[in-house]
Amino acid sequence: MNLIKRTNPRPIKLTKDINPYAHGSVLVEFGRTKVHITATVENTLPPWLKGQGKGWVTAEYNMLPGSTHTRSKRERKSLSGRTQEIQRFIGRALRSVVDLKSLGEKTITLDCDVLVADGGTRTASLSGAYVALKLAVDRLLKDKATMKNPLREKVAALSVGIDRKGNVIADLNYEEDSSCHTDMNIVMTDSGRFVEIQGTAEGAPFSDEELSALLDCAKSALKEVFKAQEEALRG
Amino acid sequence: MNLIKRTNPRPIKLTKDINPYAHGSVLVEFGRTKVHITATVENTLPPWLKGQGKGWVTAEYNMLPGSTHTRSKRERKSLSGRTQEIQRFIGRALRSVVDLKSLGEKTITLDCDVLVADGGTRTASLSGAYVALKLAVDRLLKDKATMKNPLREKVAALSVGIDRKGNVIADLNYEEDSSCHTDMNIVMTDSGRFVEIQGTAEGAPFSDEELSALLDCAKSALKEVFKAQEEALRG
Amino acid sequence: MNLIKRTNPRPIKLTKDINPYAHGSVLVEFGRTKVHITATVENTLPPWLKGQGKGWVTAEYNMLPGSTHTRSKRERKSLSGRTQEIQRFIGRALRSVVDLKSLGEKTITLDCDVLVADGGTRTASLSGAYVALKLAVDRLLKDKATMKNPLREKVAALSVGIDRKGNVIADLNYEEDSSCHTDMNIVMTDSGRFVEIQGTAEGAPFSDEELSALLDCAKSALKEVFKAQEEALRG
Amino acid sequence: MNLIKRTNPRPIKLTKDINPYAHGSVLVEFGRTKVHITATVENTLPPWLKGQGKGWVTAEYNMLPGSTHTRSKRERKSLSGRTQEIQRFIGRALRSVVDLKSLGEKTITLDCDVLVADGGTRTASLSGAYVALKLAVDRLLKDKATMKNPLREKVAALSVGIDRKGNVIADLNYEEDSSCHTDMNIVMTDSGRFVEIQGTAEGAPFSDEELSALLDCAKSALKEVFKAQEEALRG
Amino acid sequence: MNLIKRTNPRPIKLTKDINPYAHGSVLVEFGRTKVHITATVENTLPPWLKGQGKGWVTAEYNMLPGSTHTRSKRERKSLSGRTQEIQRFIGRALRSVVDLKSLGEKTITLDCDVLVADGGTRTASLSGAYVALKLAVDRLLKDKATMKNPLREKVAALSVGIDRKGNVIADLNYEEDSSCHTDMNIVMTDSGRFVEIQGTAEGAPFSDEELSALLDCAKSALKEVFKAQEEALRG
Amino acid sequence: MNLIKRTNPRPIKLTKDINPYAHGSVLVEFGRTKVHITATVENTLPPWLKGQGKGWVTAEYNMLPGSTHTRSKRERKSLSGRTQEIQRFIGRALRSVVDLKSLGEKTITLDCDVLVADGGTRTASLSGAYVALKLAVDRLLKDKATMKNPLREKVAALSVGIDRKGNVIADLNYEEDSSCHTDMNIVMTDSGRFVEIQGTAEGAPFSDEELSALLDCAKSALKEVFKAQEEALRG
Repeated sequence: MNLIKRTNPRPIKLTKDINPYAHGSVLVEFGRTKVHITATVENTLPPWLKGQGKGWVTAEYNMLPGSTHTRSKRERKSLSGRTQEIQRFIGRALRSVVDLKSLGEKTITLDCDVLVADGGTRTASLSGAYVALKLAVDRLLKDKATMKNPLREKVAALSVGIDRKGNVIADLNYEEDSSCHTDMNIVMTDSGRFVEIQGTAEGAPFSDEELSALLDCAKSALKEVFKAQEEALRG
Repeated sequence: MNLIKRTNPRPIKLTKDINPYAHGSVLVEFGRTKVHITATVENTLPPWLKGQGKGWVTAEYNMLPGSTHTRSKRERKSLSGRTQEIQRFIGRALRSVVDLKSLGEKTITLDCDVLVADGGTRTASLSGAYVALKLAVDRLLKDKATMKNPLREKVAALSVGIDRKGNVIADLNYEEDSSCHTDMNIVMTDSGRFVEIQGTAEGAPFSDEELSALLDCAKSALKEVFKAQEEALRG
Repeated sequence: MNLIKRTNPRPIKLTKDINPYAHGSVLVEFGRTKVHITATVENTLPPWLKGQGKGWVTAEYNMLPGSTHTRSKRERKSLSGRTQEIQRFIGRALRSVVDLKSLGEKTITLDCDVLVADGGTRTASLSGAYVALKLAVDRLLKDKATMKNPLREKVAALSVGIDRKGNVIADLNYEEDSSCHTDMNIVMTDSGRFVEIQGTAEGAPFSDEELSALLDCAKSALKEVFKAQEEALRG
Repeated sequence: MNLIKRTNPRPIKLTKDINPYAHGSVLVEFGRTKVHITATVENTLPPWLKGQGKGWVTAEYNMLPGSTHTRSKRERKSLSGRTQEIQRFIGRALRSVVDLKSLGEKTITLDCDVLVADGGTRTASLSGAYVALKLAVDRLLKDKATMKNPLREKVAALSVGIDRKGNVIADLNYEEDSSCHTDMNIVMTDSGRFVEIQGTAEGAPFSDEELSALLDCAKSALKEVFKAQEEALRG
Repeated sequence: MNLIKRTNPRPIKLTKDINPYAHGSVLVEFGRTKVHITATVENTLPPWLKGQGKGWVTAEYNMLPGSTHTRSKRERKSLSGRTQEIQRFIGRALRSVVDLKSLGEKTITLDCDVLVADGGTRTASLSGAYVALKLAVDRLLKDKATMKNPLREKVAALSVGIDRKGNVIADLNYEEDSSCHTDMNIVMTDSGRFVEIQGTAEGAPFSDEELSALLDCAKSALKEVFKAQEEALRG
Repeated sequence: MNLIKRTNPRPIKLTKDINPYAHGSVLVEFGRTKVHITATVENTLPPWLKGQGKGWVTAEYNMLPGSTHTRSKRERKSLSGRTQEIQRFIGRALRSVVDLKSLGEKTITLDCDVLVADGGTRTASLSGAYVALKLAVDRLLKDKATMKNPLREKVAALSVGIDRKGNVIADLNYEEDSSCHTDMNIVMTDSGRFVEIQGTAEGAPFSDEELSALLDCAKSALKEVFKAQEEALRG
């Protein structure tokens, strides 16, 4: 396991209640990466879910034009494949820890708007979105709009990669991400099980041994993320 | 002039340098209204301006879904008339104080993303965008990318309105704006001249006397805005 | 007031009943500018207005490709900001003189298609649209489809500007409009009150004194427009 | 041939030079049907035609919302199949009489905007478009922008149909068109040859004998259309 | 009639039941041209047909990118005029032999996806679509979902053209189609009557005599197509 | 490792050279799932790759309307997130075994059109696309359009899942896929290394042990796929 070089994520900062109208809101920072997240509860459902006594949790992801090194254009005509992939990733991962029956016929939308993008925006968005979702759910429970807590456990995500020297490192920033030949996003629950594994060899394919090191590194680093979520919610 | 009831704008807060990549950036707050603004300089020009030895200043305006009382949908297919009107308004007003020749063949884009919308988002956007633009220009001058200061004077904007009792008040929040029967956005330079006047009678048409009171109220209130801009830039 | 140089609008011609199917129709000409207008009454309402016992008046604006000096492309994908701004301007101004309750649950759409554009198309559209609207309303009253006249007073619009020599002139044609450094569209009722003021400094900002001259010039010129509307409706 | 009942088209009126900017323009009326047509010459070419020493003639077709019995929506998102079919029909038919080499590297666009639609708008558009095209070509020849007349002969179109009683009639108005079980648009040159035949059985298929009667009726009626074109151009 | 040179269509192959889910399906080949067709029955109707006790038959046409000599782009934003024209052509022709009342409140959609395009794709699509439609209808009758056979007679289509030497030939392949100066698509029923005639002079207009030869050639060639349909359905 | 229940994929069939125009083509079948694939070589490049002496390999994925149990609508306005995700997946995986420098300044596009969708369409598409790509590359080498073989090794993909009883099975059909609570797509090279791992817990998160079983099952099953590719290319 001596492939693993760095298991510490960048400094994490979670500032909650940044928006007066949303049911839950948080500003999440991993190093310089900064994402503005709001959770909105609405008494509507997507058409294909109506009348089943279940709710829905979904996400929208967007990068502000100034969030990247060179200004990126707004996606005003149609969403890029990358954006859609990330939206689906966040929604799917959140739903894996939600009991949609307990939620009841409501939709909770997590809007993740990236203010600064220095790598790991999708995993930061998910880790922050969980906090905003928890705040919104707490309010629903307090208001007795939902009777049973629909959240089964915590969920968080992080990227890990193999750099050019073959070292496995956690929570890649933009520069590291560009130079890694394998990049993996891992979503776990705080009980230590996998929700999603997305690993891609950008250059050379990776071996069984490398895969093991990537998974171990992620598990270790995610403990820090769960700790930061807890502190933010307690604080 | 006893129609005028309130000439003080809401508490103004301007936080600069909130983004590591943009050439100028500011978070502007008028009361609860909060707009995230970045200024990006690019060495490109719109096609119809090429080869004229002049630059361009333009703006994009966007409301985050969670910025409003009830979640507003992202404008992902086409821009609403309102959004386009505001973008044109901000760009036009900024250009009125810029000498595009001195700027040289560059485009400066002001991205105004509304985080919280409690009335006056277009005027707050403009007043903040001026600050972000100034920061970007200062950097161009420091880097000797532009030789002569293209900014001729300061520009700022504020809304004024006539409420149901006939009182003229400045810097309307969302609730006040909804109940005013006349609403006017006024853009002025710090030399006290008009750049733009947009007045609309939502209910009953307004008289000459009411028009005078609206203009006087705006002039008085805008002095506070110019003061806040100055302090932010000095600080 | 010696800034004012010309208060007469260009020759105005209003030809009514140019369409066999519309509820009201008019061809309006201000000098060479020519706009084809139809008013259609439909027993439908925009979704957000249903069930309130009120009607709606709205406008669509469009320039035919051959209406401009060089052929302009049809807006077939999405509407330009300019088009949307003008549509909103016309609809808003018309509604300011309509009692939507008296109209009842109907939508009247004013289609303004510009055949020739030689300046002032938005103000000519509005001044003509009022006539088409009046014809449609008269027919509703005659057919007893509406019991009470929903029109409170007349409404008309005109542009005024300050040319390069500092002269204030009314009803700018295309060439004059291009050379004016300030351009203002003013909508008034025939009782002499303001419905909308849209003034923009294209070049140098304008002073209090200039603003006064612009408003006076518009008031004087609009009397001619109200007269032309009356004659057309009487004839 | 006793199937043929009516070979006279409705009263035809062609008013030329209705637009100060277009290179050719005409208002064409067949009975109540009224189409506004402009021809614009531009020194550009579609990409796939560049560098071949040839020109292009194309058409755009549009119905004004008020042109139909019940208001028709503007085609602002995408063109309907019907509109595209008509545009291609007009362009193709005009090109059949144009020598694109003689025209030289220019595009002539015929904009056909239907003001009133009482049947036969596509054939009226084509018959009028020929006149606008001829006016534009005459001006090119006069200005020596084109050295050789690119028009080989005249072209015109008309609809014919078989009504419920089995009678063949020419130039159907809206009501007749709706009740005919076969409808045919025929484009001919004045030398009596066919450019396009589009016949469709809306109800029962049609026989050889009926086809002959339709073609004979069209030939006879088109003589009147060619005569009207000639008079308009001469006048 | 000695203008006619070739009345035989290319080798025809119809392979039915190529899809496990569709209500009817066929792979149709005319020479190298190959179209994949499925017929789907749905218990829905277009909005304007609801509540009239009638059904609907419609078609969608699409070329796979690799179907043409040089790869053609997918029509992912909006449909080309050509595609829409062909879709309307196929749907209209099929409906001419369907009694929509007998069909009942159902929609049958014929999806025609061109795998290889070597000329005559629209006529091959229609001739094949009839077979898929017949298979779907037979299944409806067998399942007693429809009580009376809604198909009145057979329908098929073929192209004919006049080549550069003046010869009239049937069932043009891509190369022949490109070199013909007149191209005609003819839809007939097996009782020998016309459903649709679409003839276009690409180069020189065509005479009465040429028209007669084109029609005779098509009639003769279509007999082979009807025979192939019958065999496929029987087999 | 006794979690693994089935390591055999469904019967695989690869029919090559199904298209006369494409540079490589194959019809791939895994059980009832059937995908039509063409590879087209073009001498163009995406803008961001020009002038780097490298080529590009990309994929488009599309489901025919009749390919699913109930007809699925064509994606004619914008691509769904799912489609974009799959297109990116196929292109990325193919590029992992291509030396883009050796390919030279060309784009090879793999068009994957699903004729029948019974589960595993994305993995069948990739496994078939490799064959079509190989055929296209062989032709380039034979034509001396490319001098050095750009393909480094074989690539193939398969899905594995955990069903409700906790059994790990390979190559899920539609019904199995719907009932599995974890679904993983695995892309490997024939040297036994990973190119991509996409695992998602649809229901309960999965453990380390389950992850191991999924990976082992995939490795074993993919050997069959590599064998089928080899036979198809040899035959």
